[in-house]
Amino acid sequence: MGEANSIPTMKDVAREAGVALGTVSKVMNGIPVGESYRKRVEEAVAKLNYRVNSYAKGLKTNKTYTVAVMVPNLVSPFFSRLVNCLNRALSARKYRMLLFATDYDPAQEQEYVILAEQQKVDGIICLSYNPELKVSDNVPLVSIDRYFGAQIPCVSSDNYGGGRLAAEKLVENGCRSLAFLRIGSRLTNEPNKRKDGFISACESLDIPYTLKIVDDGTPYAAFEDFLREHLRPEGGLDFDGIFCVTDALAYQIIRSLRSMGVRVPEDVQIIGFDGTRAFGDQDLICSTVVQPVPEIAETCVDLILEKALSKAPSLICLPVTYACGGTTRS
Amino acid sequence: MGEANSIPTMKDVAREAGVALGTVSKVMNGIPVGESYRKRVEEAVAKLNYRVNSYAKGLKTNKTYTVAVMVPNLVSPFFSRLVNCLNRALSARKYRMLLFATDYDPAQEQEYVILAEQQKVDGIICLSYNPELKVSDNVPLVSIDRYFGAQIPCVSSDNYGGGRLAAEKLVENGCRSLAFLRIGSRLTNEPNKRKDGFISACESLDIPYTLKIVDDGTPYAAFEDFLREHLRPEGGLDFDGIFCVTDALAYQIIRSLRSMGVRVPEDVQIIGFDGTRAFGDQDLICSTVVQPVPEIAETCVDLILEKALSKAPSLICLPVTYACGGTTRS
Repeated sequence: MGEANSIPTMKDVAREAGVALGTVSKVMNGIPVGESYRKRVEEAVAKLNYRVNSYAKGLKTNKTYTVAVMVPNLVSPFFSRLVNCLNRALSARKYRMLLFATDYDPAQEQEYVILAEQQKVDGIICLSYNPELKVSDNVPLVSIDRYFGAQIPCVSSDNYGGGRLAAEKLVENGCRSLAFLRIGSRLTNEPNKRKDGFISACESLDIPYTLKIVDDGTPYAAFEDFLREHLRPEGGLDFDGIFCVTDALAYQIIRSLRSMGVRVPEDVQIIGFDGTRAFGDQDLICSTVVQPVPEIAETCVDLILEKALSKAPSLICLPVTYACGGTTRS
Repeated sequence: MGEANSIPTMKDVAREAGVALGTVSKVMNGIPVGESYRKRVEEAVAKLNYRVNSYAKGLKTNKTYTVAVMVPNLVSPFFSRLVNCLNRALSARKYRMLLFATDYDPAQEQEYVILAEQQKVDGIICLSYNPELKVSDNVPLVSIDRYFGAQIPCVSSDNYGGGRLAAEKLVENGCRSLAFLRIGSRLTNEPNKRKDGFISACESLDIPYTLKIVDDGTPYAAFEDFLREHLRPEGGLDFDGIFCVTDALAYQIIRSLRSMGVRVPEDVQIIGFDGTRAFGDQDLICSTVVQPVPEIAETCVDLILEKALSKAPSLICLPVTYACGGTTRS
């Protein structure tokens, strides 16, 4: 740790430069002053490492260069990668991030919105589980994955296209009968479209499919029962391809199948959704539909810093890609 | 999305309550006023959902109920779990978190400290990679894992005890010869003590050991070469127990060993460090020394909100535990 100084104020700069306080203020706000004055102020600013007081400036300009980000938590790899990318995108534009982890609690979310507004943030980017969320008109909001209506831009992956892609890849890899497994919130949200895309592709390819869809909070055993019901005496399952709504679910399904003696990918091929890598940057957990997280983050930040949010599209879906992670033949 | 309102000001409260602005201010600051006035103000506050303007309050009180947290990134599971727990600990005390991801860049870190100070945070909690970090005297700082000197409290796991625990557990499980593998920063930091504890336990137990220690940036292939050098023609390695400095390294080592035909845990038992779980809450990646992340977070937040930081211990090491994750016999 190097030597420590107390934070210099505009008064300290004026004293150091030997000029009036008003002169410092003019220089800091880009208002022309005599060349020698400007130079003395700039030298004093550099020497003292002076920075504008955000609070004083925030009160005057109504701009704080701070954006609130709200996600359920940071331990789910998708959320942590999203926050990492949002942080980078904001930092590149010299904005700060106020972070709120909501733990999926709608009341907590509402309370955090109030805390963020009170802090006079320049905008809120949220991945919300509160469809009734109330936000003040004068704080721009961009939503990830949850569609609130035409007035709030929503950014997500192309979930529908991703569902189609998963079914198509399974069929390309030789699957003849598919299953879709999902656990998740009943609330309307964009990821629900993964199922619709999957069904649409199965129907256009004329491939039979089974669905197993359960609500958040259902014990995982429901899926094990489902798998056991479809075990065949000669080995394998009634279907030879499974699309799981997330990599996290695929991870559990693969473990269950292996413990039942079903081989992955020999007997059944599995595709998840998200593009999760071990430790964030190592192997894929499974074959997967990769969400374009950096692009989602950049898009959200571009939107929130734009003034004409009301003219923004109500839904922006960014393209997904497929990656083989060893649980399909290719 | 429910109906939207603009943010109410203290003036709106005064108008709603039919009292003077000064009366509202007194009530908000707990200064006694006539009972009927207090009641009218409180009713107006509740009706309008009025919240104090942090910026105006921050200027007056020099307190912002905001703490800056700085970590290298959020995609490493240890960092994301740490930030998750810090967020919960701050939120429980009604504090907000400003988040800065430094990407291990010392210059970026210094810039973020200035940005945080400019925002007038009440404190900074950082996991720093900048041993020269300069922080103003009037912003309390708590460091995680990096010891800056007596005046800055440092909170970490008991890394030395964890290194001992890893060696002891390998020996308890029947290992006769051990190896310690490490990749990491050369900077002095608390996790370096994992090696010292490991060596100390090997020496007291009279167990032979090998060290393979490389700097950050060294290609991983250095470890594969090391493992290959120690492969025995009859199977297995020259050592039958490995302690890896992190779970992330253990994950890679296990994959390399399996690809070389070495069985884990039959031929060699492996212990990592951190307590990483798949998807944050599922299986352990490997047998591991578990860091007490929630306790580290609570301790940091308690320290930063304490006024008498200068009287705090200079180093606080919290106890670790062992968990079997299938890469040891027990």
